[in-house]
Amino acid sequence: MHRLGDIGERVAITLILKHLEKMPYMPVPFGDDVSAYPIGGEELLVLKTDMLIDKTDVPESMSLWQAARKAVVMNVSDFAAKGVKPLGALVSLGLPARITRKELEDIAEGLNAGAREYDVYILGGDTNEASDLVISIAMFGTARKDALMLRSGAKPGDVVAVTGFFGKTSAGLKVLLEGFKAPKSVHDVLVEAVLMPKARLKEGLALSTSGAVTAAIDSSDGLAWSLYEIGKASNVGFVIDNVPVAYEAARFAEVNGLDPFELAFYGGEEYELVLTVKSELWNRANKAVKQVGGTLIRIGRVVAQKRVLLEFEGKKRVIEPRGWEHFRRHRE
Amino acid sequence: MHRLGDIGERVAITLILKHLEKMPYMPVPFGDDVSAYPIGGEELLVLKTDMLIDKTDVPESMSLWQAARKAVVMNVSDFAAKGVKPLGALVSLGLPARITRKELEDIAEGLNAGAREYDVYILGGDTNEASDLVISIAMFGTARKDALMLRSGAKPGDVVAVTGFFGKTSAGLKVLLEGFKAPKSVHDVLVEAVLMPKARLKEGLALSTSGAVTAAIDSSDGLAWSLYEIGKASNVGFVIDNVPVAYEAARFAEVNGLDPFELAFYGGEEYELVLTVKSELWNRANKAVKQVGGTLIRIGRVVAQKRVLLEFEGKKRVIEPRGWEHFRRHRE
Repeated sequence: MHRLGDIGERVAITLILKHLEKMPYMPVPFGDDVSAYPIGGEELLVLKTDMLIDKTDVPESMSLWQAARKAVVMNVSDFAAKGVKPLGALVSLGLPARITRKELEDIAEGLNAGAREYDVYILGGDTNEASDLVISIAMFGTARKDALMLRSGAKPGDVVAVTGFFGKTSAGLKVLLEGFKAPKSVHDVLVEAVLMPKARLKEGLALSTSGAVTAAIDSSDGLAWSLYEIGKASNVGFVIDNVPVAYEAARFAEVNGLDPFELAFYGGEEYELVLTVKSELWNRANKAVKQVGGTLIRIGRVVAQKRVLLEFEGKKRVIEPRGWEHFRRHRE
Repeated sequence: MHRLGDIGERVAITLILKHLEKMPYMPVPFGDDVSAYPIGGEELLVLKTDMLIDKTDVPESMSLWQAARKAVVMNVSDFAAKGVKPLGALVSLGLPARITRKELEDIAEGLNAGAREYDVYILGGDTNEASDLVISIAMFGTARKDALMLRSGAKPGDVVAVTGFFGKTSAGLKVLLEGFKAPKSVHDVLVEAVLMPKARLKEGLALSTSGAVTAAIDSSDGLAWSLYEIGKASNVGFVIDNVPVAYEAARFAEVNGLDPFELAFYGGEEYELVLTVKSELWNRANKAVKQVGGTLIRIGRVVAQKRVLLEFEGKKRVIEPRGWEHFRRHRE
């Protein structure tokens, strides 16, 4: 008998989708980061739901305020990746009976803080008794159909880029969960990356407006996994020749004798955007992100061969499609 | 230290709302059954989220297919009460690792069945590992602002009405959970009311179109509670002179020596609509519901005094504001 603990989250989703009748015209296919519904003309209602559960998503040192804020931010990040401004959110809470009044207020403040940080309002919700703390967010916005950045438009020859450096959350999680030591100079940055993630919303909106992006996703399941997801949806592969390792992650790796590339490619809960850009419009994309105070880092190029190949210092290495996945007892 | 198990769900919601910054213009206030966001002209995006959790919402004899279907239906019911056609839904699942592949497929089929029964499509979602089975639905539709039936428009002199007879689910739950016996002739109807609830969507849409309704809610927390909720939002009270006890509930009460009014007023998980109608437009409302094959039952009138008074066979009795509530160890 196959139980969920063995089959994994991604197989579970495939099984579920098999039984759902598809709306005849779906502006965004199942499997992308958001859902959409046509509301007249070229306008789409864009929706997303994502659930945070304390026992799998919240390290012990994360406060309830931080956990609630993060539940909102991880939804905002998917809107950022699609280039859509989120407008409002509903919150459905599952609350253990042991939760105190003070803890409940911390959760409410964290939800509000996460929303207002991105100019979103919480418009309603629902509370229930549960064994775990469950924070389920449903977020919405509207967008013109042609402004949406899907996973599926990457073409060979496009530039691959990211909005920041990688590896901080994987290092931070090793500090918080596995007892690794971090040099004093970088410790707080690594831990902060885990506890107070930021969504790249202004970058995502600027990129959408630039019209230069062919595909995008956020890196919440890790850089390697995100590349493979774009690859699968766009039917392409990647050659990566510039690995965007964060300075702090590199220092942490050095001191602990770890592979910095491993930290950068296979982290998770890191909310950078991973995107592909028409090469002739690279300057336009780059300028758009700079204008809102962000950074766009070119890390490689899109190719026809469906794999992620790392070319670095004259050596080639295939980056495996591994990423964080719930249900499975171990990472794949 | 006040814990959730002591303070109850409704106090919890008040605590949460205290910390949420309100959107400057809220077309539907916090505390009504749905949320809304203006999307241009008089048009509103209408949204609702409601979560089903196996350990509190699912009797043992309810199948996973039925539980998943019910999670959708209870959201549709709130759209029915507001007179809004739901268009699509997102589903966020918390799944225990013990769930089998077959059980997961049953859940997916139940979700799809509940949605398609009301012409809704499931457009996306999210899965997570959790201790409980958690089915969180976020549903949306659009409506003209003036077509929305809120809780807040009831006026003294209005007629109070419901869309069906009450007490079947409370009797059914007594059979399923407390070992009560039901006469053979009504047993299946009572149990079916619990396992396969229906939302009064066509009635709600017809009532909205009639323009005769001043306030509405569904009866998911019980008839008494629903009346008090309209009363609180509209600043009115009610005199009830016709108690709509379902025949099957009356038979069950008779055989078991129970008060049929108790079953009718204090049940829960019963998805009738409870509404107030301008008295001069009663015929119009009645006709609108008949035309879609439904029934509208007049049960009393709206009064200024803020309580629910039962006048029956010359006797008066105040109906207390009791209803089903999570978190509390017992009903209030």
